Order: sequence, then structure tokens, then C-alpha cells
Amino acid sequence: MSELRQDPTTFDWVIMSKERAKRPHDFVKKGRNSRLLPDHDENCPFCPGNEARTPEARAVYGEGSAWRIRVVENKYAALTPKGDTAREEQGLFRKTDGYGGHEVIIETPLHNQCIPFMSDEQVVQIIRAYRDRAISLKQDRNIKVIIIFKNHGESAGTSLEHPHSQVVASPIVPPLIRRRYEIATQHYDNTGRCLYCDLLFDEVKAGERVIRETEYFVALHPYASRYPFETWIMPKVHSSSFSKIVDIETSDLARILKEVLIRLSEGLDNPDYNMIIHTAPVDDEHKTYFLWHIQIIPRLTLAAGFELGSGIYINTALPEETAAFMRGVL
Amino acid sequence: MSELRQDPTTFDWVIMSKERAKRPHDFVKKGRNSRLLPDHDENCPFCPGNEARTPEARAVYGEGSAWRIRVVENKYAALTPKGDTAREEQGLFRKTDGYGGHEVIIETPLHNQCIPFMSDEQVVQIIRAYRDRAISLKQDRNIKVIIIFKNHGESAGTSLEHPHSQVVASPIVPPLIRRRYEIATQHYDNTGRCLYCDLLFDEVKAGERVIRETEYFVALHPYASRYPFETWIMPKVHSSSFSKIVDIETSDLARILKEVLIRLSEGLDNPDYNMIIHTAPVDDEHKTYFLWHIQIIPRLTLAAGFELGSGIYINTALPEETAAFMRGVL
Repeated sequence: MSELRQDPTTFDWVIMSKERAKRPHDFVKKGRNSRLLPDHDENCPFCPGNEARTPEARAVYGEGSAWRIRVVENKYAALTPKGDTAREEQGLFRKTDGYGGHEVIIETPLHNQCIPFMSDEQVVQIIRAYRDRAISLKQDRNIKVIIIFKNHGESAGTSLEHPHSQVVASPIVPPLIRRRYEIATQHYDNTGRCLYCDLLFDEVKAGERVIRETEYFVALHPYASRYPFETWIMPKVHSSSFSKIVDIETSDLARILKEVLIRLSEGLDNPDYNMIIHTAPVDDEHKTYFLWHIQIIPRLTLAAGFELGSGIYINTALPEETAAFMRGVL
Repeated sequence: MSELRQDPTTFDWVIMSKERAKRPHDFVKKGRNSRLLPDHDENCPFCPGNEARTPEARAVYGEGSAWRIRVVENKYAALTPKGDTAREEQGLFRKTDGYGGHEVIIETPLHNQCIPFMSDEQVVQIIRAYRDRAISLKQDRNIKVIIIFKNHGESAGTSLEHPHSQVVASPIVPPLIRRRYEIATQHYDNTGRCLYCDLLFDEVKAGERVIRETEYFVALHPYASRYPFETWIMPKVHSSSFSKIVDIETSDLARILKEVLIRLSEGLDNPDYNMIIHTAPVDDEHKTYFLWHIQIIPRLTLAAGFELGSGIYINTALPEETAAFMRGVL
């Protein structure tokens, strides 16, 4: 018999399917050659020497002539700082200009240097670049939400191999983000406490889904994971907004993020994944109802008609087992 | 500049990206050999002769010894009629037994006969089998939602080539379905009219996204399509529940569904797709606030970190253009 588990942060239900269950090592994809990429590709627009092939840099990190991280506008930006945010309506059809921002953070000059192979210092600098971009983009009072994310590998939706992340600044708070925030607010109104801090407390007490705990962060496979090996990194010090992370936390976050990605890469042979930083909407950052956190979604399974139609996901791996597997890697 | 459009049935926003826009024919996938399958595969559990390899039939359609459609329990059922629906809670962790139903509708005895190649009569019978299963499964008072869906092709999440659909009977109304239903209810409370009927009226008036209109149905690419070539088939006669469809409507639906799938298959060279029948929760079927409808999602693009993190989808094809393209096929 399977089990239905509810995610307390979204109220979504997940079917933990024992009938379809796989052992953690069944998710290892054999025969991938992702580490055999060259460290420089002359056709790659993100490699040094091809700077002219990207839009002008918004920020550059590094010393002297050599950059370590470059931030550029996305050449195929989904949102751009043009037009305005007024809604136009015609009957039930509502639209507005695609106003906003869309940047690419080129994480390293090396074409093949994914986070697991970077120095700790480089990962710290990436996280600080994320913070800098969030702070910069939200200066525009039209911006209501900052979404920082990373697509690693083709089945995670990227066509460019060169390690990079993206930041989108949206003029709209979409229902998915508003809803998550409202659920946390309701919990705060009821209990006087942060929902995510309560959840973190329960997860640490249960222990079995925790992968790693550092001074400032905990990495875990949540109780109601939608996806096999879904991983959250949650701060132990309450903060609604990622953009308020302080330097000592960025150093600790870099270590735990790198370690989680090394374990994932070693344990599952470099799977494709998406990484998302969830943070409070800009206008709500000063409130204490939300906890920013990182979600990593390895792309090991596909959402099919049932998931798309119901919002109920079928997870074929128990987070207790995948977390134990991850703890055993290295 | 791109455009943000809002889906009035979910309030979700979609970015219609002109910078990334593709022409409709760019989505054609070349070199697929999907029509070269044999009409019988002795290793296929759904082919005649292998009936013993599936769980016992719940329903069989056809005359004499030869079946035309078989309905069986899913061998790897996500939900089964075992346990109960009481919730168990421990701190923030809430769960319940995976109670419910999960059936497979084997649509044809022929291994390679997809809907575009079936007789109209066979498609009518499939739709009536859907209706029969919905009516049967909801006799159980624990069942709150019926989800009928079809996964066509590997990237739509199926591993079995033999044409089949699935029905899941869930003891829980998931937030995605509750939310859609609540938005329709709110519209009814405000206007005294069905949101979906109003939307259909606006779409038919605009005309440019309509593909085909029959006596009882309209097929269209909705204004705020999340996915390129996303297609809805909406009934013109108001009804909350698919299970109340009458025979004259099933015949008309079979014709328009088959035609839509032929156009999709011819126009894009048999793309993988998911098909979902959206219908009111069981306990709300007697109310008039919702309109059941069919959604077809061709799997031509991937949801990446931005979509998963924000719920805002980037659509790289305008529904006005894809609908015109579809009208031109045949």
C-alpha cells in the first residue's frame, strides 16, 4: 500500500509509491561523459575571449584582466526593463508588458568547472553574486519577486554546458509564490512562529531525512518530497529574504551547497538538476513569516498526465532511504 | 518585448516570449518512426493473448471472444482500495493511506493503433469507457476526485507503447483542483455565470485561437497557453462533470478529439503528449460552477528552474500562430 504525505508549506499531497518503489541506486544513470568536457570551448559564448558574444556585463568579479564571474543580461531575456506593468483587459483576457529583468551569472571562466570541482572561495563568490544581483534588481520599485535558479544539464532545460545560473526579476507575484507565502503567514498568525523554522525543528528531531548540518544550515530530503532526491538547504537563523544573507553565512552556505552537489554528483553520476532559491516577495521581505531556502530538484523522473492534471506527484523513492544513501556517499 | 498573459481559470501568468519565439513548424520533430510499430507484440502485456499478464479485467468491451477495449487495475497502482482515509499527524508531518483506485484502459487490441488511426466508433467507445469507469469508481463514497488521463510517448511519461489511458480515483481533493474549482465558484458568485462558458464565449468571439467547432464542442489553443500547442476541447453545453456526458455528445466528442489528434500528429509528426480530463470534484458535481474540459499538452519543451520555482511558464509560441498552423493542417 502506498502512502499520501502532505507538504505543510504548500498543502500539496505526494504519493509515496511502494508498489513502484525503486532503491536509491536504481536512479544512477550509467555511461554519462559529462566530466570529459574541455575546460575551454571556442564556440561557447560564456568562455573567456567570447565576451563580445554576450550582452554587456552588468557586473564582473575578479582581479586584473581575468574575470572569475561575469553577470550579463540574458541574450534571450524573458523579461526586459521596457514597457510598463499596467494590466490591459479585454473580456477575460488580461495581459501586461513583459517588464522585468533576466540576467545570467557565468559562474566560472572554465567551461567544465561545475560547482563540485570549484574552490570553496569560488562558490562563496557565486552566492555573493546572487545576493548582489537580487539587491540590485529589486531597486526597481516595479519588481515584486526575485527568482534565482540554475538549470544543470539538458533534461533540466539548459542547452549551454558552461556553468551558469540565472536571475529573473518579475513585476508580478505569481500565485505559486503568493500561495506559499500565504500558507506561512497563516501559520504565523495561528502560532506566532515561522512555519519553515517549525518544519526544520521537526525534521532535525526526526533526523532520518537530514543529510548534513553545519553551523548555519541544514540539508535534507523533505518528508513530502515531490521528486526522488529532492533536497532542501534551510538556514538555521530565521530570515525571510535571501538578499539579507550575511558574509559569514555565505561561507557556510558555500560549503554545504558544494558538499550536497558533490554527494549528488558522486552518488547519482552527475544527474541533471534544477536549483531554486525561494525567498519572500520583495514587498514582504521586512516581515518574519517566511524562511528563504534552497530547493534542488534532480531530473530523474518525468511529470506525466496525472501530475500535470492533479498536482499530486508520485514519488518512487522514500526520502528516508535516499537521505540515508546520500549520507553514505563519500 | 515579451508579454505576460493571465489564465483566468488559474490566475497563473505565462510569459509569451517573442525574443525566444519559434515558428510553429520549428516544433516538428524529424525522423521519428513511431508509425513503424507492429500491430502485435508478443512481449506487450496489453496485446491479445497476454491477458493473464495484467490484473483481472474490471470491464471488457466487445462482442464474442474478441475484446475491443479492456479495463484492468494498474499492475503498479499508485492508489489501491486498501487502508482508510483518516489522516495521521505527528508535528507538521501529515499522512494517510494510499487509498483509492488506479485503472488502465487498454484502448484497442492493436499494438500500433493510436487514436488518429481508429474508427470513429472505437473512439466513441473509449470515451464511453472513460465515463463508465468514472461512474463506477465514484460509487465509493471515499473517492473525492476522478482524474482521467493519457500519456502518449516516452517524454510524456509512458514506457508502454500500446495505446492506453488511465483513471485515478483519489480520496483527496488536491490544492490544484480545489483552487481551479474555487476560482470558478468565485466567478459564479460574482457574475451568476460559469467562468469557462464566459471564456469559451470570448474565445469564439475572438476566433483566432479556435481550431475547430462542432455541434457540441470547440477545440482551441487558449489565450494564456502554458505550453506550445496546448489544446483545450470545451463543451458548448454547460456541464460540471464529465461523467454526465450523454451519448450524442460522446459521438461528437470522438470526432473532434480524433480530428485534433490527427492534426497534431500530422502537423508535428506524432509528438508525445499528455491528455487530461478536468472535471468537478465528486462532491461538487451537482453544482453548476465548473465546466469539464479536456486539456492536451504536447511535450515539446521542458519546465526548467524558473517554471518550477515561480509557476510562471515561458511559452515560446503564440497560440494565435499555432492555432492558425493547426487549422492549416489537412
